[in-house]
Amino acid sequence: MDKNSELRLKGELERIKELIDRELINLKKTVEGPEELKESSFHLIMSGGKRIRPFILIKAAEIYGVEIKEALPAALAVELLHNFTLIHDDIIDKDEYRRGVKTTHVLYGEPLAIVAGDFLFSLLFHILSTSYPPHISSKLVEILSETCKYICYGQTMDLLSQKHLKSIDDYLRMAYLKTGALFEASAKCGGVIGGGKEDEINGLAEYGGKIGLAFQIVDDILGIYGDPKVTGKPIGSDILNGKTTIVILKALPKIDEYERRTFDKVFGNRSATEEEVYQALEIVRKRCDLSDIISMLNTLYKEAIAALSVLPDCEAKKDLITVAEFIIKRSY
Amino acid sequence: MDKNSELRLKGELERIKELIDRELINLKKTVEGPEELKESSFHLIMSGGKRIRPFILIKAAEIYGVEIKEALPAALAVELLHNFTLIHDDIIDKDEYRRGVKTTHVLYGEPLAIVAGDFLFSLLFHILSTSYPPHISSKLVEILSETCKYICYGQTMDLLSQKHLKSIDDYLRMAYLKTGALFEASAKCGGVIGGGKEDEINGLAEYGGKIGLAFQIVDDILGIYGDPKVTGKPIGSDILNGKTTIVILKALPKIDEYERRTFDKVFGNRSATEEEVYQALEIVRKRCDLSDIISMLNTLYKEAIAALSVLPDCEAKKDLITVAEFIIKRSY
Repeated sequence: MDKNSELRLKGELERIKELIDRELINLKKTVEGPEELKESSFHLIMSGGKRIRPFILIKAAEIYGVEIKEALPAALAVELLHNFTLIHDDIIDKDEYRRGVKTTHVLYGEPLAIVAGDFLFSLLFHILSTSYPPHISSKLVEILSETCKYICYGQTMDLLSQKHLKSIDDYLRMAYLKTGALFEASAKCGGVIGGGKEDEINGLAEYGGKIGLAFQIVDDILGIYGDPKVTGKPIGSDILNGKTTIVILKALPKIDEYERRTFDKVFGNRSATEEEVYQALEIVRKRCDLSDIISMLNTLYKEAIAALSVLPDCEAKKDLITVAEFIIKRSY
Repeated sequence: MDKNSELRLKGELERIKELIDRELINLKKTVEGPEELKESSFHLIMSGGKRIRPFILIKAAEIYGVEIKEALPAALAVELLHNFTLIHDDIIDKDEYRRGVKTTHVLYGEPLAIVAGDFLFSLLFHILSTSYPPHISSKLVEILSETCKYICYGQTMDLLSQKHLKSIDDYLRMAYLKTGALFEASAKCGGVIGGGKEDEINGLAEYGGKIGLAFQIVDDILGIYGDPKVTGKPIGSDILNGKTTIVILKALPKIDEYERRTFDKVFGNRSATEEEVYQALEIVRKRCDLSDIISMLNTLYKEAIAALSVLPDCEAKKDLITVAEFIIKRSY
């Protein structure tokens, strides 16, 4: 990424993040219902987040000259969808921190956190159905409800990982469903709002799906190699939570018997000591061949960019290419 | 209700229940994703239920001559919505039985039950967006996503009843949100599919809202006076769960200090003994003036029927009137 593209991307990411954050403040103000529901459902979404999914949606729409104002409701919807799944995910995984703040169920209790997630879910479909002409809104609802189904499939695979996550292929399918599908949907929605042709929307979808998958892979790398101060997640949380990530799947066949015993004591065991966690992390780091994964990421990047070739060259398309590079190389 | 209307209603309820049940079997067959997700998300919905919401939707559409085939996807959607909320409700209330079978989270664990609810939620919006022309589907999505918001409001009030349920008016608002709103939406959706005029759809909405509210009130009466063998819920479960229902709100101001101590020991206390539960039930039964509530139900019934007067007389309208009577008088 050259210096200019990097600067432009940072500016654009910042600009769109500010827009989304402002929309969220307005949305929270206009939302009705009990105060506790408002607070709990907006807690996580207003505690940060890079707003990359809205960015992708808005940039995909910009290719067609769509004004940002018109893309905003759908951009907000994908961010609401993302955060709805995070609230429920955190309950399921019993995670206590995310983005450096306490998770919704820790602050408000599990019952209200379940409802808070459901509320964001309801809100996003309501926004979609009331912000666009019917032929657009019904298409957006179709795309995002299908994506929700995929996320549920992925979440179930993740939850029952012993049965459903035995190979790298299983992992890739799960990561596509849990994360890739929503990136895919974001890019597609942008194309639909822009009135894109079928092959163009397919191109955008492929781009989104590939970089979404890459995003999840990078997340899983950071779960083992990342700095908890930067990731906002406790050290070794993927190991403590028994998450069968690509890094762990790559390492497992290569660890010896002795290491295996140490690893098994910590994997999925929330009461493991800090020292045990460090030991398990060291084993995984030593045995995982990261270069394999990095070359996989590079392939995904190239395929994602190639999929955009059906679209006319323009600034917005350039931004999509730069953000893809940024996703692959993010180290925070 | 005369004998003929009663017989006709039973036949129609049965017919529509069979249709919905058949659709559910087909839906479960065509749904993709991990087996465990399919099983857990369809467990409750396939364990029974009167399908009254689909009935109302289908009958409202029939007023306009809509063929049942055309109304079925939306009818299925309201039943999916209802069951999605039940799955999450049961987790929240820690209920172990519903409809005489074990609840979803008891059978599959809380994590999968959360995802199962989310899955039905996704499914219903996907069905709506793919089964109707855009101008109809976007309206249906708008109505049902708004209803979901209301259900979340009601659920939050119920959850934080000490703050939000202090008076009969609070209760009525909560019962409308939690239950009335979905009946209202069912009737409205029927009208939308039928292409009803605005005042007609408003009439259907009012009818639905009122009988939905009545339905919840009857449910709460049955929670105290009903036979657990028939209701499918454990004896005194509303008291054990600390549910501030209308029956309890009516009784509380009238119980004496001694009774209050006995009641307080059981209310919201899941480890109360069976004998204590019976004592608390007796106190509430003795002190609640049921005739007040019954006259409220009769008023709701009359208002519901009156709201239908904007609609042409026909068999389907007659069925809506009969089912309203059936709801008020159900004693199972």
